[in-house]
Amino acid sequence: MALQGKKLINNPDDVVMEFIEGLVETYPGLQYLDGFPQIKVVLRADVERGSYDKVAVISGGGSGHEPAHVGFVGPGMLTAAVSGDVFASPPVDSILAAIRAVTGPMGCLLIVKNYTGDRLNFGLAAEQAKSEGYKMEMVIVGDDCALPPPRGIAGRRGLAGTILVHKVAGAAADAGLSLAEVAAEAKHASEVVGTMGVALSVCTLPGQVTSDRLGPRQMELGLGIHGEPGVAVVELQSVDVVVEHVLKQILSQETQYLPITRGCNAVLLVNGLGATPIMELMIAARKAVPELQLVYGIAVDRVYTGTLMTSLDMAGLSITIMKSDESILKRLDAPTKAPAWPVGSEGNRPPAKFPVPLPPSPSMKDDEILAPSQELSKQGCILEAAIEASATEIINLKDSLNEWDSKVGDGDCGTTMYRGATAILEDMKKRYPMNDAAGTINEIGATIRRVMGGTSGILYDILCKAAYASLKQSSTVTANKWADALEASVAAVSKYGGASAGYRTMLDALIPASAVLKQRLEAGDDPVTAFVASSEAASAGAESTKQMQAKAGRSSYIAPDLLASIPDPGAMAAAAWYRAAALAVKNKLHGSKS
Amino acid sequence: MALQGKKLINNPDDVVMEFIEGLVETYPGLQYLDGFPQIKVVLRADVERGSYDKVAVISGGGSGHEPAHVGFVGPGMLTAAVSGDVFASPPVDSILAAIRAVTGPMGCLLIVKNYTGDRLNFGLAAEQAKSEGYKMEMVIVGDDCALPPPRGIAGRRGLAGTILVHKVAGAAADAGLSLAEVAAEAKHASEVVGTMGVALSVCTLPGQVTSDRLGPRQMELGLGIHGEPGVAVVELQSVDVVVEHVLKQILSQETQYLPITRGCNAVLLVNGLGATPIMELMIAARKAVPELQLVYGIAVDRVYTGTLMTSLDMAGLSITIMKSDESILKRLDAPTKAPAWPVGSEGNRPPAKFPVPLPPSPSMKDDEILAPSQELSKQGCILEAAIEASATEIINLKDSLNEWDSKVGDGDCGTTMYRGATAILEDMKKRYPMNDAAGTINEIGATIRRVMGGTSGILYDILCKAAYASLKQSSTVTANKWADALEASVAAVSKYGGASAGYRTMLDALIPASAVLKQRLEAGDDPVTAFVASSEAASAGAESTKQMQAKAGRSSYIAPDLLASIPDPGAMAAAAWYRAAALAVKNKLHGSKS
Repeated sequence: MALQGKKLINNPDDVVMEFIEGLVETYPGLQYLDGFPQIKVVLRADVERGSYDKVAVISGGGSGHEPAHVGFVGPGMLTAAVSGDVFASPPVDSILAAIRAVTGPMGCLLIVKNYTGDRLNFGLAAEQAKSEGYKMEMVIVGDDCALPPPRGIAGRRGLAGTILVHKVAGAAADAGLSLAEVAAEAKHASEVVGTMGVALSVCTLPGQVTSDRLGPRQMELGLGIHGEPGVAVVELQSVDVVVEHVLKQILSQETQYLPITRGCNAVLLVNGLGATPIMELMIAARKAVPELQLVYGIAVDRVYTGTLMTSLDMAGLSITIMKSDESILKRLDAPTKAPAWPVGSEGNRPPAKFPVPLPPSPSMKDDEILAPSQELSKQGCILEAAIEASATEIINLKDSLNEWDSKVGDGDCGTTMYRGATAILEDMKKRYPMNDAAGTINEIGATIRRVMGGTSGILYDILCKAAYASLKQSSTVTANKWADALEASVAAVSKYGGASAGYRTMLDALIPASAVLKQRLEAGDDPVTAFVASSEAASAGAESTKQMQAKAGRSSYIAPDLLASIPDPGAMAAAAWYRAAALAVKNKLHGSKS
Repeated sequence: MALQGKKLINNPDDVVMEFIEGLVETYPGLQYLDGFPQIKVVLRADVERGSYDKVAVISGGGSGHEPAHVGFVGPGMLTAAVSGDVFASPPVDSILAAIRAVTGPMGCLLIVKNYTGDRLNFGLAAEQAKSEGYKMEMVIVGDDCALPPPRGIAGRRGLAGTILVHKVAGAAADAGLSLAEVAAEAKHASEVVGTMGVALSVCTLPGQVTSDRLGPRQMELGLGIHGEPGVAVVELQSVDVVVEHVLKQILSQETQYLPITRGCNAVLLVNGLGATPIMELMIAARKAVPELQLVYGIAVDRVYTGTLMTSLDMAGLSITIMKSDESILKRLDAPTKAPAWPVGSEGNRPPAKFPVPLPPSPSMKDDEILAPSQELSKQGCILEAAIEASATEIINLKDSLNEWDSKVGDGDCGTTMYRGATAILEDMKKRYPMNDAAGTINEIGATIRRVMGGTSGILYDILCKAAYASLKQSSTVTANKWADALEASVAAVSKYGGASAGYRTMLDALIPASAVLKQRLEAGDDPVTAFVASSEAASAGAESTKQMQAKAGRSSYIAPDLLASIPDPGAMAAAAWYRAAALAVKNKLHGSKS
């Protein structure tokens, strides 16, 4: 587990100072007090000393829980946050400085997580501030539900539930309430919130070696946020089992930590402990919501999923439940500019989420059997002849394509193309609407997508789709329309595939083919002549790939001298089916004239 | 590195499905399409099919990059996001379903990270949608700056810079711009953004074993977001050195990836790769901003620091620079409801942050030498006698206190109290304003805080501070005022220290003392008699701790039978100084009368 000791930091002693410097660079609305870095106080940049006309709400504690608490400073939440060193309570002078900096005539509420050091330091600062004439209140949050009710002085630890208390108090203060009222709301919130954590890894203090108290298949239940050992070490379990266990502990009828019973409403917070991907937090939220609703009969009003109160780089999560009512929801939903408060969770959740119906596809389905045209038009006959010739040519070329590909690629070009060609011949008889050229090209794409797979399959499907979109714009398909369709196809393959001329791909056959076809038609050639001429350009283009360096596909990993004299099999295949089509059209229209 | 394989998941095959289920539970504004889980499309819950009157902006790609891209769905950003399996491009049918679900008459822009699979699948879906009559545009983002300019088709990878392109496009669409205009803004944004990543660990695919290609003191530079190896493996360096190197690569004049030169403006994105604490990201931001401004002459308009585009549980970060101008800043600052867009970074940054001046302390400074009262008043004489007697008693009791403490605690109670008592005697001569009882008590607190330390030091300071705040409310200090002050002191120590009567602490002496003092004064006793009676209650209370179980401090770890017959040294000390003070006052006032 030496890996865990790795951190992207500089001097381990400077992490808190440098973190706060980065924080104020990131958020224009946050500022720090002078006396920094000895005094680590982050405050709203818009609060003028002495003149603040609302109750100031201050929290803080040891660092290492980022974004808590500095990330929750902002209008609607904390007025200031005081940071100690990593896992160390801030000194009294820092707390006093924060109080003096932001407290106006309405007074100041301190919200403190229940740890002896924090209680004493914040407590002393509060008493000192009182003696200086400030109106002060303090609410202590101990939301841990992992341990049995304590007999002694230490009490329950303050964990991620503290963030929800911040939000309630901050919104109450922002609404203009008096200090007594804000303190009362915060105290109430602290009495209806419970939290429990689980961890997969132990956190590492900056510059220190990681403890290896957890084995590779173990997890820890009921831990705190300072690397202290959990209540139990157990075998790694699925997150669903973990969530069930944690909810049972939090809602235990034995400890009666939370005054929540069947029929109550609650909000849920799934909090990452520092190194837990959002994916895993969301998976836990997904389990917790129905578990609360169906097993415990608790309606879930809001779900907050995110990384809010961490233990440095610990992998794990905590679950927090707060009993909710209209007043608490109003505070939680109230807008805040605090950068780390999770957005997007506010507002009533629908009782159940029914998925949005899938829009039907307007195109034909692959598994529909289309009635083939009863009788082929002249155009249909020509198209049939071209497709048949093209597919047959590819079938005949299978071994050559494979052989070339075995020298410059993975050797399956012929087999893949063969699979497409035989499927096209089959599908053509069954379902292609041969008198509708656009529709037939579209269906060829569908056939290819179904049987070919891989990059070549999807590129040929794109080729067909682009040709279809081009052809279907007009009711009659002329030679010029075919030329436009080929041009659109080549553009689409180049755009999405990323290749251009000279990249040693099928485009080295099709780009010259498209160009020559356009030129000849514009020059007044008859369509068949133009088509045949363009197919010669395709063949020449394919042959020219022998001299090209590969820039795409597996060939790009092959040394240039090995490639020389081997043509690109994709280009050869494209030239082959194109030329076969051209010759078939010529044969059909001009008969033996050629 | 077996540890890295640990994840809070269920079946590894279900992670994407379960993630999306948790996502829609968390965010009321997000919804998923039917066909789920085969089709994994998250869309805005408020967009009705076919009627959306703005340009739809869709992105997506393989999963494993959470919160990208589903977390960026919301008004002002993406209209929908399409997810594939972990690190696998989503299938064409899913992309098509998303297009059909949200695209209205204004059309649809696809924003695609430059990976072959994504290009082809999104490309085919775009062509299919076009053929169905939808207006479609596609912008491909390749912002990687780690590799030299590629010769081939693959091009530069799409990394975290894509998120900024999403924001620009989403805001442009939200402003009502046409598809061509939105696409043009997105394309421009994609051409002025560059990114490079560094990693401390390799990511682990769900259900798989982690590669151990990185040693315990190694890091990787220039990696992608799919676990692919980086450009170089180097020895672990300080984050400042890493940031310098990464910025040099991104802004390289050789590759000319970014059209940014001295005098330009830019925005900075410091992005976590999945398991990187926010603390480390902020430390990197702290270095990057002045580096850009001072070394490269680039003004930094905005800083975004957060976890936006990840590689599962990879520890590391990427840095993104986007050239900014008024138009881009307007788009970046525009409000959005997308849950994962970082809030709090919008708005002009002050050119430099000057810390808020530290408010001066209205109380006396520890290092000021106060002019002691020229001549002691009668009250001052009595106070001096009481303090002298109390301190002397504690000094005399040093060894006993240490002996008791060695049996139930850590053995230094006497030494600690001795340190306080001797310092009080010294400071009294030098600086206590003895004719001002409140001020003197306040100074005693300051002396104690300076020399005693530890929990007892801070508790005695709290005691003094509370007494001071109580006493200073009135100009003349009567016996009743002293009783009120003692009551306030006891309440403060109990509140912040967390102990009550019976917890085996100093409060077991002071609570009965306070109660008896109040009672006797109310009963009409003369002050001296009441004080002496209350000091007897203090002594009795301290003696009674012999029978108490410890609930606080180190004694709480000692078995009850070992504690029996040993009094709590803290309580004994409190009773001792209190009784000495009472007797000294009696002696001073009544002389030999007693």
